[in-house]
This record gives sequence, C-alpha cells and structure tokens, in this order.
Amino acid sequence: MAGLLVGCFLVLSARVGAAVWPQPQQMSVAAEGGCRLSAEQFRFAYANSSAVGPGCAVLDQAFQRYWELIFPGGRADRGKHYSKGLRCNDLLISVTKPGCDGYPLLESSEQYKLTVSDELMFLAADNVWGALRGLETFSQLVWRDDFGTRYINKTDIIDFPRFPHRGLLLDTSRHYLPLRAILETLDAMAYSKFNVFHWHIVDDPSFPYESRAFPDLSRKGAYNPVTHVYTASDVKVVIEYARLRGIRVISEFDTPGHTLSWGPGAPGLLTPCYAGSKPSGSYGPVNPVLNATYQFMAEFFADVTSVFPDFYIHLGGDEVDFTCWKSNPEIRAFMQKMGFGQDYAKLESFYIQRLLDIVSSCGKGYVVWQEVFDNEVKVKPDTIIHVWKDNAGQYKNEMSQVTKMGYRALLSAPWYLNRISYGQDWLQVYQVEPLDFEGSTEQKNLVIGGEACMWGEYVDVTNLTPRLWPRAGAVAERLWSNQTVRNVQDAYHRLVDFRCTLLRRGIRAEPLFTGYCDSEFHEF
Amino acid sequence: MAGLLVGCFLVLSARVGAAVWPQPQQMSVAAEGGCRLSAEQFRFAYANSSAVGPGCAVLDQAFQRYWELIFPGGRADRGKHYSKGLRCNDLLISVTKPGCDGYPLLESSEQYKLTVSDELMFLAADNVWGALRGLETFSQLVWRDDFGTRYINKTDIIDFPRFPHRGLLLDTSRHYLPLRAILETLDAMAYSKFNVFHWHIVDDPSFPYESRAFPDLSRKGAYNPVTHVYTASDVKVVIEYARLRGIRVISEFDTPGHTLSWGPGAPGLLTPCYAGSKPSGSYGPVNPVLNATYQFMAEFFADVTSVFPDFYIHLGGDEVDFTCWKSNPEIRAFMQKMGFGQDYAKLESFYIQRLLDIVSSCGKGYVVWQEVFDNEVKVKPDTIIHVWKDNAGQYKNEMSQVTKMGYRALLSAPWYLNRISYGQDWLQVYQVEPLDFEGSTEQKNLVIGGEACMWGEYVDVTNLTPRLWPRAGAVAERLWSNQTVRNVQDAYHRLVDFRCTLLRRGIRAEPLFTGYCDSEFHEF
Repeated sequence: MAGLLVGCFLVLSARVGAAVWPQPQQMSVAAEGGCRLSAEQFRFAYANSSAVGPGCAVLDQAFQRYWELIFPGGRADRGKHYSKGLRCNDLLISVTKPGCDGYPLLESSEQYKLTVSDELMFLAADNVWGALRGLETFSQLVWRDDFGTRYINKTDIIDFPRFPHRGLLLDTSRHYLPLRAILETLDAMAYSKFNVFHWHIVDDPSFPYESRAFPDLSRKGAYNPVTHVYTASDVKVVIEYARLRGIRVISEFDTPGHTLSWGPGAPGLLTPCYAGSKPSGSYGPVNPVLNATYQFMAEFFADVTSVFPDFYIHLGGDEVDFTCWKSNPEIRAFMQKMGFGQDYAKLESFYIQRLLDIVSSCGKGYVVWQEVFDNEVKVKPDTIIHVWKDNAGQYKNEMSQVTKMGYRALLSAPWYLNRISYGQDWLQVYQVEPLDFEGSTEQKNLVIGGEACMWGEYVDVTNLTPRLWPRAGAVAERLWSNQTVRNVQDAYHRLVDFRCTLLRRGIRAEPLFTGYCDSEFHEF
Repeated sequence: MAGLLVGCFLVLSARVGAAVWPQPQQMSVAAEGGCRLSAEQFRFAYANSSAVGPGCAVLDQAFQRYWELIFPGGRADRGKHYSKGLRCNDLLISVTKPGCDGYPLLESSEQYKLTVSDELMFLAADNVWGALRGLETFSQLVWRDDFGTRYINKTDIIDFPRFPHRGLLLDTSRHYLPLRAILETLDAMAYSKFNVFHWHIVDDPSFPYESRAFPDLSRKGAYNPVTHVYTASDVKVVIEYARLRGIRVISEFDTPGHTLSWGPGAPGLLTPCYAGSKPSGSYGPVNPVLNATYQFMAEFFADVTSVFPDFYIHLGGDEVDFTCWKSNPEIRAFMQKMGFGQDYAKLESFYIQRLLDIVSSCGKGYVVWQEVFDNEVKVKPDTIIHVWKDNAGQYKNEMSQVTKMGYRALLSAPWYLNRISYGQDWLQVYQVEPLDFEGSTEQKNLVIGGEACMWGEYVDVTNLTPRLWPRAGAVAERLWSNQTVRNVQDAYHRLVDFRCTLLRRGIRAEPLFTGYCDSEFHEF
C-alpha cells in the first residue's frame, strides 16, 4: 500500500515562486520587486508601437480569457483594452507584424519577450501567435499571497519553441467526443503551448464527420447520425476556437485501411472480401483498382481541403491488411495486369501515389504515417513522415532513415498517452529526446516536432481529460523547452504546480502523486 | 493504433434483452410477456402481507430513487406509495422481517425473490436490505423501446449473495475526496450490490477525520483544516447515505505505522527517531513503550467506536517500519526489559495486542491487515484477517494459512484497482476465484468475502470514478454471483451494458472498449 518514489519526490502543494510550464528558453525572475496587480486597475494594453491594436480578435479575446484566469471572479470593467500610458498595472503588448485574421502556420514565429520591472510590464512578439504564448507565460507568473493580492515579480524572459510542430491527437472515431471535450482540450493545449490539434476524425468504428459532398458517410457511418456527428458548424467552431489560441487544426482522413465506417455511406468504395469464389459479405480496405474510387477521393478531398484551412492534411496510410485484397479475384487480376506479382505493398503504393497526387492538386501538403515511407511510396520531397511504431525503441532507427532520405519527420512513437501504466508514467514520456538518433545536423534539422497521441479504444469523454493531463504537459515541455531542460526533480515540482493551475482553470487533470492543491477541482 | 481483442470482443451498444449486473443466482426472463410500465401509473407498493410499510425510510426513499432511475425526467405524483390492488403497474413489495431503522450487519440476509408475470410484479425479501437488492435488479430489467415506452419481461428470479462481505475501499488520506465523491461512490456501489464501504480515512499524508476527542488531529494533520476535513456531520451523512443503500461503513484507523499525520496534533504519540545519540527531528510509528500512548488510544477509539455504528472496525497493522524504533534508546531499553531481544515484531505485537484489548473493551470486533496474523499476534478467534499482499499469487497460500488457523478471511490482494494497465484490465480482476486455495470445506466457509481497493497515491476526485467504474463491477459480480458465472464473453456484454446504465445514472464510468452508449455521459 505504500507509494512509489516517496523518498525521491516530495509533496509540493503551495505555489513556490515562479514556475512556468513549459520552461521558457531564457528566464530570470527576481525574488522580489515587480508589480502588485489590482483587479480594478489591471489592463492589457496595446503599445503605441504595436502593429496590431484594438479590434484584433485574437488578442482582444485572449485579453478577456487571461483577465479571467488571473482574477477569477474578480471585478473590473472588462473589455476596455486601451493604452493609458505606462503604469505598473498595464501589461503593454507590442506586436511587430500586422495580421490578426489569418491562421497560424508551421512557419509562424512564436517568439516573445516578457519584461516586468517595478514600473513596467512589457510583452513583445513578432506576431499575434507569439503574443499568445507570452500571455500564457505571464498568467502563470502571477501569484497570490495569503490575503488574495496578486503579484508578479521582476522578470526577464526571452522565449521561443524548440520545435515548430507540437501536436496532440484526439481520436473521435473509436469513441465520439462531444464538442465541449474538444474545446476543453484546446484550452489545456494553449495552457501548455501545444500548437497543433491533430484530429483523427474518422476510422473503422465510426464516421462522425459530416461531409458536404457525401452526407451519407456520417448518416450511415456515425454511431448515431444525429447525436454522434460533427456538423459543418461544429468543425468551424473547432477551427476558430483553435485559431484564437494559435493552434492549427490538421484533419486526418486515413485511407486505404481504417475505413470500415466509410462503407455503408459509399457503396462500392471498399473491397468486397471473398470466401472462396464468393463474396463473404464483409469488406476490406478501399478498393484501389476502380476508377470510381479515385473520382470519389478527388471529390471528397476537394471538400475536406476547403473546410480545413491548414496547408497540411494527414492522409494516414498505416496498417493496411492485405488479406481481403488477396481474396478478391478482381484485385488479383489487377495485380497481374500491373505486374505487381504477389507484392501487395505495391498495390498499396499505387493507391497512395494516386491519392497524394489528388491532394497535391488541391494545393495541400500532406503528413503520412511511417508505413507510406517504409513501403517506398514515391512522395513529394516536402512530405512529412509521422513516426509512430515504438517496437522497443526502434523508432530511433526510423527517425534516422526518414531524415536520411531528406524527409521531414514528426515523432509520436514514445508518446502514445492512451497507453497507461501504474505510477508516475509521465517520467518516461518526459525523458524522451526527439533528436537522440544517429544522423547529421541536417538530419536533425528535419525533425519538425512531435505529437502526443490519445487513441480512443479505451478513452471517451468520461476519462479523456485525466488520462491526458498533466501527462501531455510532459510532451509539451519536451517540444517547447531547450534540450537542456531535463531535470526530473525540478520538472516534477513545476508539473505539480502546472497541474494545480489546470485544476484552478477547470481542467480535470489527475494528480502526479500524493498531495493537494490550494484550489482543488471544483466542477464536481 | 489498432485495438486489442478486436476479434474476440464485439462492440455492443444497444441494450440486448435482460442483462443484470451482477448476475442473479437463478434467473429466467421470457422473450416476451410481462408488463408495460407507465410513468403515470407505475407505483411501488407495500403488499398487505409485508412486515414493513409506508414510513419505512429505507424503502420509501429507495422507491423515490428507483422511480427516477426508471423514469428519468418522467412525471407522476411521486411519494405516494400505497397499495391499490393487484395491477400490472404496481411493483408489490413484501418484507418478512420488521425493522427499518437499524443498520445492515455482516449477518444480514440480502436474499430476494422477484416475479413478473402478465398481471403481477412481486418482490419478496427477508428484510429491507434484500428488498433493496431486488429493487436494483428490477430497475436493471426495465428496458425501453424506440418510442420510449418502458417494459419489463416476464421474469422469475431467486437471488442472494455468494459472500456476505462485498467491500470497496476508498483512501481519503493520500488525497482528500470531497463528500460528494464518496456519496457518488456509494450510489454506484448500490447499483452493483456492494455492501461494505471500507473508509481508509487517515494515513501518513493527512488526517482529515475530525475527532471530537482530539480535534487537534485534523486541525494540524489535515491538508487544510477547513476545506480538507470530514466533520462529524459529514461522517453522519456518509453513514446514513450508506445505510439507506444497505451499505455498512467500516472505518479504518491504521496504527502503529501509517500514522505520520497524527504527529502534529498528538504530541508524544509518535516515536522520535534518533540520528546517533540525538533525536533527528523526524518521527516513526506510534510509540509503543509509553502508557500515555494507550491512554490516548483508549480515548480516541472510545470516540471512534461511538461514531461508527458498525460492529467491526478496521485497525490496520500493516507495513510497520522498525528503523525508527531501532534508533530510539528508550525503545531499545524497553525491548531489553521485555526480553524481546532484537525481534521488533514482538514489540509490534505487544502494541497491537494492547490495542485490540482496548477496542474489544469498546464492544467492537475488528479487522486487521494480514501482517498482524503473519506476526503471530494473539487475536480474538472471531478476528477477520484482511489479505492484501499479492506477490505473484502468493495470496492463495495466505488465504490457506489464515483459514487453517480458524480465522475468517477477506480477500483484496488481486483487487487493487488503483493499479492500472493498458487495455481490458477488468478481465484479470473478474477471473479471480476467491476460494481457489488449498483447504477444507470448513476453511472455505471462513472466507466471508473481499474488497476492491482504490488506494489514493495517484487518485483524487479528478480520476476516481473512471478508474473505479466499471472495473469495480467485476469484483462485485465475483463476490455476489454464483461461482459458476465465469464466461467472460457473456460478462463483457453485460458489463458494457451495466456501464451504459452507470452513464445514464450520471456515473462517469470509463469505456471497456470501442463503441458507444445510447445515453452517453451527460454532466460534461
């Protein structure tokens, strides 16, 4: 009944000084000095020098959110974000580059500088996305004394992410996740500076995405065509909610495998499996030998790429089971005609190749799971390969191979957070070093980041949040902070603190170990 | 990314016929016939033959609860529980033994008979506790057609528990659990026919129990003396809430180890540890060599035993670390005086022996962890030994030893539900057979049941419910149903169904596997 690691990890409950998660690149926080913040007087204010000002929705709405996070229940005439000269209670924000209405990109800067002195609080960033990251850091630096007064100490921070792609995958096919669960996850992602929501939106078990081009897909493929679907409006809400937090939304429509739920709404799309000389009544992967398949995909992805604004789309391509293809006489005839012999990987490549061309012609870039690379499908040089197979650390070899061929790589293999074990399993997630593989500096530079994955076989709205948080935070820090930030003792204390921040903000994050937070989870 | 066990466990979503969890001892449910239930007309009604009638709070309140569970949001003039003759829409309840105001006991019958025909619905039980079990079964048998009409098929059930002690342990020391989390757990326990709430209320990290005799214990030992305590009123609420559901509350005050949090509020109680010739400033287990210790315990347990009505109290006695005792010169001198040599287990036994005498003199029986037995402490013949050490199946040997010596045994070793692993880990919990150890029939008869344990190192209100449910249900069925109920395919389908029932009733139970429920979890 005793706990693990009692000796080496002490219980931390009270907020100790300035803990920021993820750890900024450069930070000095003085033991004293700085500003006392008053809910009556505190304001976010655009500096005169700023290229964006009042009316910039991304920042105006961030000011509202962070005001409420810093002064929960506090009063002030919110919404007025005007500059009224330099006073300690103004956080002045200055953004170099104009632009408020666009979407964050893989290439977007997220750099910011935060300065707090006795007279002045100043946040400078290249663009609004960097300003969002700085606002999060600012909010985490504010602390409260026993009388409820809020302070921020004298601080100097220069910060920027180590990797530009810091993603989190949710799987809404194995279990449907209500819209609010997705939005809550986007909130917690912003708190830990994730910047990509990878929406694994459909898969074998269900098709909750309402396609404008093929509405029958969700009508016949969702668990319930009314309650268990994402309408066009839901998708728009997710994309805009994410944008306002500087988060890209990359949708995944995985083919040719993982497509059973497409079948009922798209007759003829899937391969009929045969038992002997007759169709067995069951279906396999997408049928790659029919022209109709490619017409369907062209129309389907034309719609999808117009709905999701991000340049990248995730095309899946993983775990294609050849059994059904092998059973089907039409497929076998096609194999022979094409000279593929018995190598069904060639057939898979044939399909993927054509799919990639279709999506390219929609003006999009793509991410694919590693099998597409492993099977030597010819892909565009700027394709992103997503490494997911763990195999006892074999992923390092894969990272090495992918980058050696000049492709950009995304790492997820050690970050399958749906997999759980007893105890402090954030540790193994945290201790991953994405660049720890054999390769040149050029190869290392091709690693654009990684993603924490929360697959849905055993996860739905009942357990999503405590399984994700604060463990996903460990991935977030690994992808944002400097490579040298690796001290697990220090990380433990800051992560405990960050978890208390999450609770205070209404996120049902589970405990790291024995202890308590000053503000426990309250929704209950 | 593929799921486990896809092939062998199908997804079950719609309610299929009459699934009851835990499986009744004898049940026949016809494919048709029975009653159509109308929210306007359905009534729980006491039969004329019943020894209890209107005014019996245990059943009157159960009628209210189950009415709302059967007709959520439905309308009817609730609260009127009168017999108005035999009609299909009356569930007639008849209880043989009078008594509504007492507490359930280890010896209480929980047997019931439920009959539903085309004209009649009849529930007969020895006492109110059995009637509660029958009401739960009845509520699970009601199903709904696509138009929302509720039915119960023709049914004959004779049911009773295999073991009389079916417990669930919550740990409120490592993390404080708010009162509502405890009450919700009691609800879910009633839904799965658990009948003992084992309240591991204090331990090393915190002392949330407000003792009337020693209020400083929680004032100085709780995480927070205002927000993180159980007041006398809270404790009363828990006991009454449990009683109304036929659940006993057994409190555990574990000594002499696991007592660090007692120290600040009870100066002199804990052993001062020494570094060389001087006190180190840290403390060990309860100091067993002082008379003051036993005076304290006598007063403390006199209070505790008056607060908790159950005949049994859990006295712990596990995991006593001798390091501190060995360092202390007074303890060493006492060892010499007593002729204990270097055998500190003898000192532990000396303490436990006196403690047991104190608690006996309060008129209570006790449960102790297995170490008390392992260390050959002389205990009363009717002591219950709680087997918790797993050690790769070694617990079977312990069960054998304990019962060989004539003691009654409780099994928890394979049921530490705080321990988690990825996938369908309810299976290993379910497949335990408590009587699978070497021993005579007499020995087997000494196994009074078992307990699912949810230790709190990594569990608080954020993740308690999805970690407990529906996995605790697997333990509940093992302890209630016939030994022959072991088919995991059948159990899987019924447990998926039971989990949907829990969701519908507002319990955040996690999914067993891919799929959905007609009514998903709604609080979110």
